[in-house]
Amino acid sequence: MTTLTTTDPRTGASSDTGIDATDADGVAAITAAAASAFAELRRHPRAWRAGLLRALADGLEADRAALVEAALAETGLPEARLNGELSRSAFQFRLFADAVDEGGYLEAIIDHAGQTALGPGPDVRRMLVPIGPVAVFGASNFPFAFSVIGGDTASALAAGNPVVVKAHSSHLVTSQRSYESLSQAAAAYGAPAGTLGIVYGQQAGAQLVADPRITAVGFTGSLSTGRILQGIIDERETPIPFYGELSSLNPLVITPGAAAQRTAAIGEGLYASVTGSAGQLCTKPGVAFVPAGAEGDALVADVVARAQGAAAQTLLNSRIHGAFDEIRVRLIEEGGARSLVAPHAGEDGFSLTPAVLEIDAAAVTAAVAEEAFGPLVVIVRYAALDEVRRALQAVPHSLTATLHSEPEETGVRGDLTDAVEDLVGRIVYNGYPTGVRVSWAMNHGGPWPATNTQHTSVGVTAIRRFLRPLAWQDAPADVLPVELRDGAVDVPRRVDGVLELASA
Amino acid sequence: MTTLTTTDPRTGASSDTGIDATDADGVAAITAAAASAFAELRRHPRAWRAGLLRALADGLEADRAALVEAALAETGLPEARLNGELSRSAFQFRLFADAVDEGGYLEAIIDHAGQTALGPGPDVRRMLVPIGPVAVFGASNFPFAFSVIGGDTASALAAGNPVVVKAHSSHLVTSQRSYESLSQAAAAYGAPAGTLGIVYGQQAGAQLVADPRITAVGFTGSLSTGRILQGIIDERETPIPFYGELSSLNPLVITPGAAAQRTAAIGEGLYASVTGSAGQLCTKPGVAFVPAGAEGDALVADVVARAQGAAAQTLLNSRIHGAFDEIRVRLIEEGGARSLVAPHAGEDGFSLTPAVLEIDAAAVTAAVAEEAFGPLVVIVRYAALDEVRRALQAVPHSLTATLHSEPEETGVRGDLTDAVEDLVGRIVYNGYPTGVRVSWAMNHGGPWPATNTQHTSVGVTAIRRFLRPLAWQDAPADVLPVELRDGAVDVPRRVDGVLELASA
Repeated sequence: MTTLTTTDPRTGASSDTGIDATDADGVAAITAAAASAFAELRRHPRAWRAGLLRALADGLEADRAALVEAALAETGLPEARLNGELSRSAFQFRLFADAVDEGGYLEAIIDHAGQTALGPGPDVRRMLVPIGPVAVFGASNFPFAFSVIGGDTASALAAGNPVVVKAHSSHLVTSQRSYESLSQAAAAYGAPAGTLGIVYGQQAGAQLVADPRITAVGFTGSLSTGRILQGIIDERETPIPFYGELSSLNPLVITPGAAAQRTAAIGEGLYASVTGSAGQLCTKPGVAFVPAGAEGDALVADVVARAQGAAAQTLLNSRIHGAFDEIRVRLIEEGGARSLVAPHAGEDGFSLTPAVLEIDAAAVTAAVAEEAFGPLVVIVRYAALDEVRRALQAVPHSLTATLHSEPEETGVRGDLTDAVEDLVGRIVYNGYPTGVRVSWAMNHGGPWPATNTQHTSVGVTAIRRFLRPLAWQDAPADVLPVELRDGAVDVPRRVDGVLELASA
Repeated sequence: MTTLTTTDPRTGASSDTGIDATDADGVAAITAAAASAFAELRRHPRAWRAGLLRALADGLEADRAALVEAALAETGLPEARLNGELSRSAFQFRLFADAVDEGGYLEAIIDHAGQTALGPGPDVRRMLVPIGPVAVFGASNFPFAFSVIGGDTASALAAGNPVVVKAHSSHLVTSQRSYESLSQAAAAYGAPAGTLGIVYGQQAGAQLVADPRITAVGFTGSLSTGRILQGIIDERETPIPFYGELSSLNPLVITPGAAAQRTAAIGEGLYASVTGSAGQLCTKPGVAFVPAGAEGDALVADVVARAQGAAAQTLLNSRIHGAFDEIRVRLIEEGGARSLVAPHAGEDGFSLTPAVLEIDAAAVTAAVAEEAFGPLVVIVRYAALDEVRRALQAVPHSLTATLHSEPEETGVRGDLTDAVEDLVGRIVYNGYPTGVRVSWAMNHGGPWPATNTQHTSVGVTAIRRFLRPLAWQDAPADVLPVELRDGAVDVPRRVDGVLELASA
């Protein structure tokens, strides 16, 4: 056994976690338990599963103090942020419980037997069913909301699947406590052993993805780690879906009208969005298009002044700190950006102040469009919208694009919307992409390399990732799920082509 | 240029098609035209697109005689079957037009701005949008319904995407005429050039999948070709979804009660399902579980008698014929099956009579569970249901499973349903899996190796494969799609968590 260590980024001090890396037998036992749990979990009615999700939310809130304390020591994130993240995770479990109760996510469809244009057709009934044990990889930057207790776990459980989490090496103790909170609440609720599992260590993570009992993988992290996991999946005998949320530059465009009318407000908002959580958010606007000329100059000066006056913020770990420094230098030396504000390291070696770079739109290439995880923005100055459109083509596809415009600028707004629609998964107007709302409509996804999927990882529709369709043809009622039997049901259904709301 | 030949399987005679293999420049020009068409297609309202689909259906029916004539000479399939397949393809375009009109496939969701448990939330609106040019690979066994005019083409177009088809080498002339029928109807309707494209030749198919403008691939064919295409995708800079319908053995289980009560009827139905279209259907029941004892013996004798008296049927091509012979020998020599009826080749070298094999359930291994494309069934004799359950684990996951039982056998039926639920995408009761209904609820999919996706390739929900979600946050009405604006709309939507039907 290898005992793992954790590091407090506020001090740089490492300590023994008392957690052993999970060995091969351990991973196999955990996935076997998950497979056994699946056989039982899928038999429970929706109301049972909604109750489980609510019990998990309650358990997390009861354990809030211990969980936040662990995360403080392992991430250096502000306490208010961590409390908010825990609340968000609990909210997410409850929202998904509501969705399970409501039942629309089942996509239930009934085609009764009958004469069709092609002759007699059999009775066909279809709905979505859970796929099986799901592996979830926690992210470094969200110890709660995209980790053990995060959206992938909630959506896989909501779908009816057991979950095995691979704990992120940056917050092992937080992960362990989170897992214990969930599994104790699940056991108290009566969920089968194996409903939740956790493995520790890189080797165990690789083994988990390769394990034949695992039927899907949810991942939030870097493109490079994503490629490694995809490579493991490519070697499997049975391919499985890999849902990776990978990399995003999140372009933000400010029209001349917006720059002139809301100079200080946008300067403040942009700065806050770039530097919130020390810029370690997948939706951080990494590149901001600002018009040339006086209004643009004033906006840039506002951002620069804020950055120059900023205190150092603690980054999550030394790897992120090192990559940030390297990428910033590349953006200048290879990308051709000018440094407007250079960051200063804080005293502890894990912290730094924000960086602001600038480049002319005509000079934008892929070399200046690399994601720098941390408090950094590249300001792109443009003289005409055509320059923005061209430069956007050099920016990798992203989770979001943001457009700031004035109400009367309908033509520009329409053109810019057209320009970004194919490039991203969410378009934000006169706001900021950070602070992703957990709701029914949210889409946290986007074309490659933002993700490798046609699904979101945040919001209710994230559940769809862990379901597959199953159809029953001419089935006697005794073998049909209750949601597909004739008569009144508590879920919306499409019956003979016509959508019907749930009865009563 | 390489001019391609086609072969009439009824005579074995090859002839020049006058069609050249598409060269590299040709493929690039076709995908470039598709990309241009996409920019225009996605701007059209749903009603326009529904009209296009209906125009395509009308065009196909107007060209029926020429299309069926071409397919007769290239596939050797019966004329009635080909006419039915063409009708089915036209029906499919019209059904998808209805789905586009209805608009539920957009999955429109609106979350209004407001106070939430986590603080104020922005306005978020989400729906599905088309992904871009789609490559479609036609299948050998359905010159219409799973080829140029088939379900992949219809669902990609319904979603709003242009389509480039790779013509199947077995029916090049049919493919060319089908493409001309569609593209003439599309042009007459006013669709942009590039809405439909076609390429010929294996090299062109490989280039198509590798082309950066292609955003998804739909494929129906063999596991081995599917693996080759997936390999090409793995080498792409930008990964794209590959929707492959690959391989299926379709186990069919007959309970003791059903064997006793419906001996002749099941013998007749099973035989017809195994030998229809010369057994060249992806849903053909390749393995049938029949009870040991007198009733089972009578049922087997019925099937054997039918097979012994059968005339030779023409197979689609010599490759299928050769593979059939090889696999049948392997099932006996390596799988341990007994030959009850050996096939005889017809006079022309492309035709043969059906084959019936038998094995005891206890002896079933993966070696006897290989798909033999053609008129062959492996009958598995079992003494107890536990033997069926165990043997099913050796059968690869399939598109379908079929259960024949008597009304009073509820326990057995429930146990068998449990046993197959994880293994397949559709469960058929007291019927046969061949003859897939094209409807809203149909699921033609299943766990690997049946497919590599969580979606169907037949039925209305097949459209989902070629869509991705996009969200608009705090968007002014002028940039929102009409389906997401406030007020009355003609599509169902989920608004603030509550599903609402379309307003009148």
